[in-house]
Amino acid sequence: MSSNDNDHRGLLPAGLAALLPPDAAREARAIDVAIERFAAFGYERVKPPLVEFEESLLGGPGAALSQQTFRLMDPVSQRMMGVRPDMTVQVARIAVTRLKHEPRPLRLSYGGNVIRVRGSALKPERQFAQVGTELIGVDSAEADAEAVLLAVDTLRSIGVSDLSVDLNLPTLVAAVASGVNQPEEAMSRLRRALDRKDEGGIAKAGADKRAADLFAGLLRAAGPADKGLAQLARLELPEAAAAEAARLAEVVKLVAAAEDDLPLTIDPVEYRGLEYQTGVSFSVFALKGREELARGGRYSAGYPEDGVSESATGFTVYMDAVLAASEAPTERPRLYVGLGTPWADCAPWQVKGYAVVRAVVAASDPRSEAKRLRCSHALIDGEAVPL
Amino acid sequence: MSSNDNDHRGLLPAGLAALLPPDAAREARAIDVAIERFAAFGYERVKPPLVEFEESLLGGPGAALSQQTFRLMDPVSQRMMGVRPDMTVQVARIAVTRLKHEPRPLRLSYGGNVIRVRGSALKPERQFAQVGTELIGVDSAEADAEAVLLAVDTLRSIGVSDLSVDLNLPTLVAAVASGVNQPEEAMSRLRRALDRKDEGGIAKAGADKRAADLFAGLLRAAGPADKGLAQLARLELPEAAAAEAARLAEVVKLVAAAEDDLPLTIDPVEYRGLEYQTGVSFSVFALKGREELARGGRYSAGYPEDGVSESATGFTVYMDAVLAASEAPTERPRLYVGLGTPWADCAPWQVKGYAVVRAVVAASDPRSEAKRLRCSHALIDGEAVPL
Repeated sequence: MSSNDNDHRGLLPAGLAALLPPDAAREARAIDVAIERFAAFGYERVKPPLVEFEESLLGGPGAALSQQTFRLMDPVSQRMMGVRPDMTVQVARIAVTRLKHEPRPLRLSYGGNVIRVRGSALKPERQFAQVGTELIGVDSAEADAEAVLLAVDTLRSIGVSDLSVDLNLPTLVAAVASGVNQPEEAMSRLRRALDRKDEGGIAKAGADKRAADLFAGLLRAAGPADKGLAQLARLELPEAAAAEAARLAEVVKLVAAAEDDLPLTIDPVEYRGLEYQTGVSFSVFALKGREELARGGRYSAGYPEDGVSESATGFTVYMDAVLAASEAPTERPRLYVGLGTPWADCAPWQVKGYAVVRAVVAASDPRSEAKRLRCSHALIDGEAVPL
Repeated sequence: MSSNDNDHRGLLPAGLAALLPPDAAREARAIDVAIERFAAFGYERVKPPLVEFEESLLGGPGAALSQQTFRLMDPVSQRMMGVRPDMTVQVARIAVTRLKHEPRPLRLSYGGNVIRVRGSALKPERQFAQVGTELIGVDSAEADAEAVLLAVDTLRSIGVSDLSVDLNLPTLVAAVASGVNQPEEAMSRLRRALDRKDEGGIAKAGADKRAADLFAGLLRAAGPADKGLAQLARLELPEAAAAEAARLAEVVKLVAAAEDDLPLTIDPVEYRGLEYQTGVSFSVFALKGREELARGGRYSAGYPEDGVSESATGFTVYMDAVLAASEAPTERPRLYVGLGTPWADCAPWQVKGYAVVRAVVAASDPRSEAKRLRCSHALIDGEAVPL
């Protein structure tokens, strides 16, 4: 190898990294485990292309990511294409177009990489591996609960235990607001106070007592699910809002029935980052580190602007957070075999779990050559000798 | 679901397809099998990003794909990036930069998707899944043979048997040409005749007898490896060309020793599509259909224009051809379970190999609901009843 310095060739754009050994293999294995859990619950994999026409990629819920999408001119069609910033919209597109005649609910899964124009201060990455599911065409508490339980099951299978789930109703505040009929200015002060979780601000917003009490009550419902739901039940919510709260209670009951040790919290006033959700939404966290590992919830799959839309729920697992929260598996032992070892002699060692590293140049001392090649063992006189 | 027609949303750019069930899962499984075979021979996975700076992506052997690369302006660095049209160059870049201090030979593997600006008439696809290996930093017949044998082993593991391998020496013609010292015009006629495999054209090219005999001899060497190598050995090749032919003979001997039933052919004058190869190259075909399933060979990893370059060999498996040539695995049975089935009751069926499809809406007749959902079985009174 030349000793010239060509490190400039190795520079990558900010937020775009190469995964090296053993991280690349770990990420791929974790994605496989997730896809296998999804398949065990009847979710079938689809693979949308990396690039699509802008029109399909950024229609419907995809519009929210328009600013984050790299554009390419297609020389074949002379139309603009986008590099996918997210896969949910692509999977939903497949569901309402190519798979529109399949029976509902339609269960689909996906795993792949997405690219965004800019990272954030908190998350500088611009390429992510996403793996997740969509359950399309049924709006029921059982479907909502299946998404939560499958996310938890998947994370545990990948090797993250000690999870907690936070459930949200991102459209609840709007439903309460439209039911209490307050002056516009008071309402915007109320919502700002809610965003800051500022109960004093709610009292001073200038809304009538019923509205102020309702919003303060919503704020107090944040916390452990059982107490929060009891708090919500005590409020005299407008009809649409009451229906949302009842759905949340049903979902919590179904999740708790399957997972009695899983810490469940609710935060019924949270909606940030959930702009395209239309019903019960959730985040799964690792108890250690409080990192968000997966996020999902109910949304409208399709293109409501075309009059084509189906209620759906699903979730995405954030692979980078999951790998940071799970333990690295032990690597397989590496067995060095000398020059001229018959090809067929490798298989028995591979069956025993070794990676067989074949010599491709002569070496006078197999032990030191094996060590140089980071092998744990060398094949000497037919034996795998530890080094 | 709305009955509105929104098929225009489902249109994809020419050459960019979505894989649907079961093809997406099949492709992913085949990639997993390949990566596992690579790991069993000590090849460690790397995952380069989808997008890199033009400078790293299109340096060295990457220059050949410049016309096929989509460009993006990076708003962060204000520099041009390219969407990868190939992964070999990325893996080689990682080897000579981030992993330059790792011991040689360095064995790396990769699996991922690439995008090209245009498809060809024969292959209209513009997105491909590539999976392959690179063996970097050693130039030996054993290394060349390892690439061939690992490609064959991998394809068989994926489920394609009945393979044949065609070996090439894409720089041999140039080595012969520079050794025979003919007038420029005669030489260009000779090479055109070689490209057309036209022995009569060689005789009429106006070269001297020694040159014409050598080129005709190269042409006659194409065919079964044993006869072809014997034919090459009879020629009085210039020194550099003789060394290349000797290397090819050594590689054939090593491959045949490991695989005595594998049909081996050589075509020493073929160089088309092998422009960046610098030594023994090969294609693996399925005997049925004669489709090219994998291609590889020796090349210079790195950026020779920077004085940084290492001899390497490797191969890429073409997933689309492999899937067309292999049989689809049988799908797992799908078991419908009614509303209210405890979550924990699914696991025993999943262990038995069923995909468990949980009801998320009530159904009066589990059998017909299960059939509607394309299930093969329904859980009735604790039994998996076939439908």
